[in-house]
Amino acid sequence: MNEPGRPPADAMTNPRADRVRDVAKLVGRSGRLKRRQFFAEGPQAVREALRAHRECLAAGGTPVVEALYATVECLKKFPEIMESASAPGSRLQVRIASDMVLAAMTDTVTPQGVVAVCNFVDVPLEEVLAAKPKLIAMLCRVQDPGNAGTVLRAADAAGADAVIFSSSSVDIYNPKAVRSTAGSLFHLPVVLGADVAQVVAAAKAAGVGILAADGYGQLNLDLLQDESAARSFDQEIPDSLYDLAEPTMWLFGNEAQGLAGEEKALADHRVAVPVYGAAESLNLGTAATVCLYASARAQRRLG
Amino acid sequence: MNEPGRPPADAMTNPRADRVRDVAKLVGRSGRLKRRQFFAEGPQAVREALRAHRECLAAGGTPVVEALYATVECLKKFPEIMESASAPGSRLQVRIASDMVLAAMTDTVTPQGVVAVCNFVDVPLEEVLAAKPKLIAMLCRVQDPGNAGTVLRAADAAGADAVIFSSSSVDIYNPKAVRSTAGSLFHLPVVLGADVAQVVAAAKAAGVGILAADGYGQLNLDLLQDESAARSFDQEIPDSLYDLAEPTMWLFGNEAQGLAGEEKALADHRVAVPVYGAAESLNLGTAATVCLYASARAQRRLG
Repeated sequence: MNEPGRPPADAMTNPRADRVRDVAKLVGRSGRLKRRQFFAEGPQAVREALRAHRECLAAGGTPVVEALYATVECLKKFPEIMESASAPGSRLQVRIASDMVLAAMTDTVTPQGVVAVCNFVDVPLEEVLAAKPKLIAMLCRVQDPGNAGTVLRAADAAGADAVIFSSSSVDIYNPKAVRSTAGSLFHLPVVLGADVAQVVAAAKAAGVGILAADGYGQLNLDLLQDESAARSFDQEIPDSLYDLAEPTMWLFGNEAQGLAGEEKALADHRVAVPVYGAAESLNLGTAATVCLYASARAQRRLG
Repeated sequence: MNEPGRPPADAMTNPRADRVRDVAKLVGRSGRLKRRQFFAEGPQAVREALRAHRECLAAGGTPVVEALYATVECLKKFPEIMESASAPGSRLQVRIASDMVLAAMTDTVTPQGVVAVCNFVDVPLEEVLAAKPKLIAMLCRVQDPGNAGTVLRAADAAGADAVIFSSSSVDIYNPKAVRSTAGSLFHLPVVLGADVAQVVAAAKAAGVGILAADGYGQLNLDLLQDESAARSFDQEIPDSLYDLAEPTMWLFGNEAQGLAGEEKALADHRVAVPVYGAAESLNLGTAATVCLYASARAQRRLG
């Protein structure tokens, strides 16, 4: 077993070694698809990957982490990484590597001292819907990896049960997207490459209401939140528009164009985040956060 | 007067011309400080700059836009830019330029067809406080230009009265920050290079409460929102913690470290955005949005 502070004789120092090149291939999408693997870097993401790894193995599932590379300095500074990786049954060996090796593996100029090669973690839609989800975020044709990661992280913070990416969305296993999730990629089920119409039909059949986030939507999110607050004070809602406490899937569109007409048409309601000032709109990440938190609050208030 | 579709004989086509180099100097901070100018690019930002320009001149103020460069194609596609620039009293002349000239002026690989050279728009703190603000966002040591712009845009959407950046924050006139504001930089007063302790003291003296956004804060934002909802149903709040409808300045910290101890100590309360899932926290932009929208909703519900 490796111990921090005692780099083994076989520490990796050659940035041109085959094993290093193999990890580097995961920077590109085709390399990831070929091996159905990606990498997570940095202490926070790797910690969350290792936690998911242990939980998966304990539940009789497949391993999440396939290989772990770290500098001696990183393992000294974050001893919990070594602890977690060498816990009984983790089936992992930490390989000590130099900073130059880690830089060659990843696409970052300033490597963060630790890289975990992970198996794809996405799940089929059926698995998500079978678990009776209360809150889902679906991203339609989102292009920017940072945005995709930000919404996934926000959905996690809002306690969402899953995040679904439509086909022609950016790949969430893109290194920049993984970084933006800050570990949330390992916290909640993710569905990839989904067809919006199929997902909406299946979600509706599972009793999940569909709200489209749309700056020009006919419903204002404030109205729905006011209704929800009124319910918590046992007020009667004569013409209820939509109960945010109900199981809900939010549809979020492309960062530049928003949702397409046919995507909006699939939803039960089109809901606008109120803009109180002169801004034309919020950006995707902030708008999605406001929507998801509105649902989370309503569901927890009455839950 | 230039007309779209009829490029004048003196269209700018030389990317190495002195005038082009002069604009390009505004990509760097020292170049901006020297001339107290920055640039805004793209139809949306330029439209908002021109609107602010006309309003400023109409109010007897100084011009916002000093020079305007655009491709013929852009002026054809967005005729309102030419209209706005050539409105009576705008004192502006649109210079037609090639795509290569615009690329050489800005730091973008794909120029957006129009660039406005603008004078600094920030204002002194006293001006902000004299206007009896109800909602202010203060960013302390924020480093990423995208984050700075995202929070400014979210503050604008939430109807905030001003955004204040502490000294040692990223320069909001940085081209990437300007892009992230999506025009909001021209919508609400911005104060730059401020000392946190001085701002807090002045805001308190002006009757503004201070809330520090802090993941480890002792107050949960949900509690404050529940109080606010209860007030709107005329419920009594026996031990009110803080009334979100009161004039409020939020303090937001550095994206990696959050607020420093001495910054938190300046606030009346430290408030945590609730995390319902497994995420450690929200990122700066999304956390700030949730906080500012909570205040905006409370202030508008009772306003």
